Amino acid sequence: MANILILGAGKSSVFLIDYLVKATGKRGDTLFLADVSLDAAKEKLGDHSHTQAVELDIHDDRSREEMIKQADTVVSMLPPGLHPLIARDCVKYRKHFFSASYQSGELKNMASEVRARNLFFLNECGLDPGLDHMSAMNIIDREKENNNEILLLKSFCGGLLAPGSEKDNPWQYKFTWNPKNVILAGQGVSSFIRNGYYKFIPYHMLFRRTEKLDFPGLGTFEAYPNRDSLSYRKIYGLENIPTILRGTVRRIGFCRSWDVFVQLGMTDDSYRLELPDGFTKRMFTNAFLPYDPSLRVEEKIRLLLPFVDDDILEKIAWTGLFSDERLQISQGSPAGILQRILEDKWRLDPEDKDLVLMQHLIEVRGEKTIKLINSSLVVKGEKQPYTAMAKTVGLPLGMAVEMFLEGKFERRGLLLPTIKEIYLPILQKLEREGIRFEETVLERERTDV
Amino acid sequence: MANILILGAGKSSVFLIDYLVKATGKRGDTLFLADVSLDAAKEKLGDHSHTQAVELDIHDDRSREEMIKQADTVVSMLPPGLHPLIARDCVKYRKHFFSASYQSGELKNMASEVRARNLFFLNECGLDPGLDHMSAMNIIDREKENNNEILLLKSFCGGLLAPGSEKDNPWQYKFTWNPKNVILAGQGVSSFIRNGYYKFIPYHMLFRRTEKLDFPGLGTFEAYPNRDSLSYRKIYGLENIPTILRGTVRRIGFCRSWDVFVQLGMTDDSYRLELPDGFTKRMFTNAFLPYDPSLRVEEKIRLLLPFVDDDILEKIAWTGLFSDERLQISQGSPAGILQRILEDKWRLDPEDKDLVLMQHLIEVRGEKTIKLINSSLVVKGEKQPYTAMAKTVGLPLGMAVEMFLEGKFERRGLLLPTIKEIYLPILQKLEREGIRFEETVLERERTDV
Repeated sequence: MANILILGAGKSSVFLIDYLVKATGKRGDTLFLADVSLDAAKEKLGDHSHTQAVELDIHDDRSREEMIKQADTVVSMLPPGLHPLIARDCVKYRKHFFSASYQSGELKNMASEVRARNLFFLNECGLDPGLDHMSAMNIIDREKENNNEILLLKSFCGGLLAPGSEKDNPWQYKFTWNPKNVILAGQGVSSFIRNGYYKFIPYHMLFRRTEKLDFPGLGTFEAYPNRDSLSYRKIYGLENIPTILRGTVRRIGFCRSWDVFVQLGMTDDSYRLELPDGFTKRMFTNAFLPYDPSLRVEEKIRLLLPFVDDDILEKIAWTGLFSDERLQISQGSPAGILQRILEDKWRLDPEDKDLVLMQHLIEVRGEKTIKLINSSLVVKGEKQPYTAMAKTVGLPLGMAVEMFLEGKFERRGLLLPTIKEIYLPILQKLEREGIRFEETVLERERTDV
Repeated sequence: MANILILGAGKSSVFLIDYLVKATGKRGDTLFLADVSLDAAKEKLGDHSHTQAVELDIHDDRSREEMIKQADTVVSMLPPGLHPLIARDCVKYRKHFFSASYQSGELKNMASEVRARNLFFLNECGLDPGLDHMSAMNIIDREKENNNEILLLKSFCGGLLAPGSEKDNPWQYKFTWNPKNVILAGQGVSSFIRNGYYKFIPYHMLFRRTEKLDFPGLGTFEAYPNRDSLSYRKIYGLENIPTILRGTVRRIGFCRSWDVFVQLGMTDDSYRLELPDGFTKRMFTNAFLPYDPSLRVEEKIRLLLPFVDDDILEKIAWTGLFSDERLQISQGSPAGILQRILEDKWRLDPEDKDLVLMQHLIEVRGEKTIKLINSSLVVKGEKQPYTAMAKTVGLPLGMAVEMFLEGKFERRGLLLPTIKEIYLPILQKLEREGIRFEETVLERERTDV
């Protein structure tokens, strides 16, 4: 019988916690849930004889290490920046480690120690990263086993509002996950390769470089390239693929409107504004526009950014950025101040439901044909906090922990769910929970054989 | 009799070295010039009984500290990043310190120690920063003494090609100082205040937000805002000034052409490209453009950036960026690769002469009138390496050292040449060397009295 420790009882942990309460109960394990708020941990955990809520300040080294020492397996749902701290403890005390976050450089540096101590460290086992790896590798490995060659991989993911919930605002968008990540999304360069041509898109060009994609029953969406797609060639074993692109999905029209904030510099998080007291939202907007006392703010935006039309101006007006209301915070980065303004408008109402979309487009060349495989996932959220986002992040991770406890994984070391031993049983279990990719194939004769 | 140590015998040090050879010779001081290349130091120094060239690896702590220990006064012409290292030694061994570079945060942290040890540390005593401070403060202090109120300060500086030398290329521009700084110029946000309105311009908007300015006899130029102008309110004692803007001067048309590189992301220094062998300059350009095999690179630029016209395309073609020549370096940041390409084209020919321009526009309100003061400096370069840039960087610094040795400065501590005791005698000496600001005044009656 094992002791499992979950760190972090935030909103996005609900599915993971519920899943592991059930799984550990069946197995006779003990489940600890530690959070800085004991109440939050108790509320999320419920009342069970095999579970225990614990109050823990993660920065208190002694308490944290004590907690980790008495566990066998640690699951971190903490902010990604804290994972190296936890992972180091796990190496030190020989505990297994799970997270849904990107494997950082610090984690990678622990790889040989993890292997030497025969530990199981699994990262990137949530939605994105996570489900994207698993579902893409499922097709890639299958096609390779059939001696088909992968010519193209486009992989898209997005967290949006479910149909019905998107109708009360012109952006058809609200924050369904960490608002700061939404504000900063796409910063840095986005790189990919298309038909052998390398492409590098700077942030200020990103939101006009979109492409369309369809989800059956939901209609057409748009997507913009999502950071470094080139590195996925190695991760997915597609070193020589001529086209690989990862993208972020938005509703049609979102990107060109969001681009106004990007163009004006309102999403910049690299410097701090110290604005005078009494600064209004309209003044804030005007601070990013040329000086011209003969023109109104709305006119200056149109002049500076010729793509701006009535539709975009209406969306910006709806956020309050043209209003004479005082800023609620006037010290901070432009991105921080914009986030505070949007949080008032893009907060989920209690009845709002979210939507997670994922789609892979994979072109493969067989002996006689070329197939275009479309593999799509649509997950709609339930009553909050049981959102589609929490479900698609939490269930893959919970299932990975469960199967590890059951002894189903033989590999040890620092791992991603890109290996069949891990992704295949998780994808099968997810199907039973209704998280199911629908695959369609368009096949055409090769003209070159 | 004192020992003076100059660190760095680069091209930009020639005027400083010549000036201090003469000044120390007159006074009976000894002048050391240390550089990683003994030959460079010997060549720059010439043969004098009171001077000595020294070979010094600045990162060899023991040799460096030995060298500094035997000096009384240290003048650093090293790259700015090395100044904290030298300044710390100077604090430790109680030596005076001079540089023409921006006072970094690390230097500021030494202020109380510098004061406690009664040392004289003077930074920002070159061209920009340096002459800009001195000439602006000269007017600001004078007008304040006359009980006039400063309403507006616009301060511009630029390093360009002298008339005649600009004619052999369509950009009318070459590197007359550190190429890397030219490539990265303007990155980050540029902030200023105009008639009480705060303005923040992101880098990707900077090169279209230019204004015109005239230099008598030279014609009209353009300038773009230069980073953080707001902080100069405090530095210049103009806390409540409604308009303050610093700008960088370029020849007309330069900015809109340079903007193509900015828009495409070719000046980005934040990530590394690993391009395949055989990558050509044209492929490099194409990597920043959308994929479309039906369009030529030139057509794609026009489609993506509607402001691009024949004139701009011709300038880009002239740089070689549309050619099928192989890249000379294919690993490095986009900015690094672009720099390498431009260095071939924008290298000064032996007969080329450079030009330094500076202009302050200062509006002051007196009892009955409003004056617009235009104070302009034009310095043309001599035979290389005796450029206008080296002269305007080196002479103010050399003169400051000379006057310090002569005991003309009473203040001690970490200083800038914004104080009258320092700037006034330097400006007077500079006039004798032909570095003279021409002042014109437009005066109008106040309508509000």
